[in-house]
Amino acid sequence: MSSTPSRSYDPRTFKALSFHDAAQRFRDSTDTPRAYLERCLEMIREREPVVKAFVALNDTGARAAADASTARWKAGRPLSAIDGMPIGIKDLLETKDMPTQMGCLAFAGNFPKRDNAAVWALREAGAVILGKTATAELGGSHPPATTNPFDPARTAGGSSSGSAAAVAARMGPAAIGTQLGGSIIRPAAFCGNVALKPTQGAINRGERQATSMSTHGVHAGCIEDMWQVAIEIAERAGGDRGCPSLLGPRRAPSAQKPGRMILLQTAGWQQLDAGSTSAFEALLGGLERAGIEVLRRIDNPLVEKLERAIANAASIANAITGWENRWYQRNLVNENPGGVSERARAALAKAEAMTVADYHSALIDRETAQTCYAAIAPLADAFITLSSPGPAPLWPGDEPGKPLAPRPTGDPVFNFPSSMLFAPAVTMPLMAVNGMPLGAQVMGQQHEDARITGIARWLLENLEPVVAA
Amino acid sequence: MSSTPSRSYDPRTFKALSFHDAAQRFRDSTDTPRAYLERCLEMIREREPVVKAFVALNDTGARAAADASTARWKAGRPLSAIDGMPIGIKDLLETKDMPTQMGCLAFAGNFPKRDNAAVWALREAGAVILGKTATAELGGSHPPATTNPFDPARTAGGSSSGSAAAVAARMGPAAIGTQLGGSIIRPAAFCGNVALKPTQGAINRGERQATSMSTHGVHAGCIEDMWQVAIEIAERAGGDRGCPSLLGPRRAPSAQKPGRMILLQTAGWQQLDAGSTSAFEALLGGLERAGIEVLRRIDNPLVEKLERAIANAASIANAITGWENRWYQRNLVNENPGGVSERARAALAKAEAMTVADYHSALIDRETAQTCYAAIAPLADAFITLSSPGPAPLWPGDEPGKPLAPRPTGDPVFNFPSSMLFAPAVTMPLMAVNGMPLGAQVMGQQHEDARITGIARWLLENLEPVVAA
Repeated sequence: MSSTPSRSYDPRTFKALSFHDAAQRFRDSTDTPRAYLERCLEMIREREPVVKAFVALNDTGARAAADASTARWKAGRPLSAIDGMPIGIKDLLETKDMPTQMGCLAFAGNFPKRDNAAVWALREAGAVILGKTATAELGGSHPPATTNPFDPARTAGGSSSGSAAAVAARMGPAAIGTQLGGSIIRPAAFCGNVALKPTQGAINRGERQATSMSTHGVHAGCIEDMWQVAIEIAERAGGDRGCPSLLGPRRAPSAQKPGRMILLQTAGWQQLDAGSTSAFEALLGGLERAGIEVLRRIDNPLVEKLERAIANAASIANAITGWENRWYQRNLVNENPGGVSERARAALAKAEAMTVADYHSALIDRETAQTCYAAIAPLADAFITLSSPGPAPLWPGDEPGKPLAPRPTGDPVFNFPSSMLFAPAVTMPLMAVNGMPLGAQVMGQQHEDARITGIARWLLENLEPVVAA
Repeated sequence: MSSTPSRSYDPRTFKALSFHDAAQRFRDSTDTPRAYLERCLEMIREREPVVKAFVALNDTGARAAADASTARWKAGRPLSAIDGMPIGIKDLLETKDMPTQMGCLAFAGNFPKRDNAAVWALREAGAVILGKTATAELGGSHPPATTNPFDPARTAGGSSSGSAAAVAARMGPAAIGTQLGGSIIRPAAFCGNVALKPTQGAINRGERQATSMSTHGVHAGCIEDMWQVAIEIAERAGGDRGCPSLLGPRRAPSAQKPGRMILLQTAGWQQLDAGSTSAFEALLGGLERAGIEVLRRIDNPLVEKLERAIANAASIANAITGWENRWYQRNLVNENPGGVSERARAALAKAEAMTVADYHSALIDRETAQTCYAAIAPLADAFITLSSPGPAPLWPGDEPGKPLAPRPTGDPVFNFPSSMLFAPAVTMPLMAVNGMPLGAQVMGQQHEDARITGIARWLLENLEPVVAA
């Protein structure tokens, strides 16, 4: 028995798992996909009892897939650059070989024996589907058992809790998450991942297309793996119905230095703790020292105009999604009165109080915000802001008889804008506050996923990470 | 035993069932929703053995709903203008009280016990959910057992076969259909219904939003009921995720005489029989005698440009839909190798031969066509064309060992354009050829559903129906 090592996070020293650099070793057989998988399984055995990232594991299936991949690499015929990559799938997506329980009692034992389009594409690319990662209930706010790999008293974020935690705990190099409000970027930032929340529609959601603003996305230990997983899916499964798929190069975009970035200081800025504020200011200082101009709200009235248009992003987004889900969720509650959490039932009650005109009004607000966002595209190369209002908060669990904690998986206030704008966003683990990760995000215009990935890559490779108390 | 009456169709004498005019009788109790329902059930008993419009009936549930409606009308408190209306639901939509088998062996016995959002809205409006109407397999081309109410040797059209036939056989005043290529307007035209294929997204498809161009729509015996059903659903369930709902008045738009209509003579025109050509020319003559200008392809190069952009509508639409359904259908075939027809498997094989770039190319073609369509909006009040290339064809059934008939439910060539353009369309039973119905359709720009309904109403009320041999 080893003593528990300190898990305190330092972006200067933390080494996430990477896969893209293994290809050469697979080719010359100094490593194999099967051996890579066994290292992941060993890490899962070690850390899963506390982290609780997975709700299902298929180690038998994963070993068979890894063996098949090993043979392909030996024969010099890998199916793709991610052939043999162990990957976790958020438990909202259907998988033919594991149940899909969505963190929801009503779906206990649900096993549709089908692959979501993205899962299908991953298998076609040779990836090793390792397990299902824990999700907040139905992708909402009611949390799973997952803990933050850097402090078990804190949330891993949500709703892609398990995907973020699995990558942070080095249980695997990448995992699929989904974001409707803030469910990819926030947990990824809380856990020190890089992650891509793509342009709305850029990755085929398969059976999960019931809402107008959610996306599949990728959590990873490094930018190369993040992009590769996304593009391999998109090349095989395309985008959502009616949407062009993720557009960009077949390998991770090279680092691209931006000339000018717009700083978004929107809703949520007031609730920042002192450590997070000073860390982010130090990061912006680093940008400016590198010769990158930072355009602020006070510099241009169009930035101010956009800030106003997205100030109510949370309520606009929640109204839209609540309305879009209400029939589905009402049916679910009616079928399973005890199978849906109090949090989800409260959200449903709000949605059921809406009229069709309320929904249309929220759509107009969203489109207005998108117009303001597109209008200022020529002012800069991309947008930069925090990925969350501070590091992962403590989460002691609900107390019986007390009111429910409103945001047990943290506050998505910095994530609603990219969701509502249909904009691609990449979070970068460039800061630590009190030993916990804090992320910054780059946002671009629709379909600029490759561009912001290149910019994020440059920032990750060239900025000095910031450590604050 | 009465002798079988002649079912030959004549638009001058055929009386479809209507509901909107029953309200006054319900109020003064000279009629009741329960009595109305019993008349429908009696007609079903009489004609269903040959017509085969329904795959499930819930007469017990319908009677209970009709009794509750009767009480509301007596108390002077109906829930809506369609309170008590018996209505059939195409068997692609989930219903909590009946199975949803989708005309597909793989779904035999499927009973999800949930209501589609539109079904939910209908119940909230007090409508009486009478039964599930037969559909071609999965909304595709493999036909159900339904026969045409005016000639059992002919198809009722598809894929909303049962909905069209039930209305034509006076089994009910309205039924819900869905259109992806030509699945509402074509069967409605073959069966002498009026029908609305709304603007893409205008009626909430609930769980059925996997494709980018299908809509729920309404088959009815008269324009008043058609509109009322559509708007009552939209007021309660809104549109598809991301879309404003059907926009328009709370009662059927009043008749609106158009000044100028654009005639679309696109793909399919060459295959018209002589009777259909002369019937439609006579109808256009009636328009012109009424003082409505008809703008043809030769009159304006922009009409010609649009005609070219939609000339390949069938292949563009089939490529888009095939791609969007391919994961779902592959999973289905893998789970149920014997449960999916040869027709559906052939369509899947075509979809699986596509690349992501093929799909993107088809999307661009669709958007180009939409641009051409929107560009000529100012030239006229609406578009007019046939609803099908002739009346319902004979359908003797597949013969074992022979190649499959390519279009057993008729050719949707006149329907792909409105589907691909996301345009609203209303079919009008204004013609007969050889004793079978032939429809003309009015098409408008996106969200002009109310306008084209008003125009269709004017044409129905003012044009002399045409009877040709």
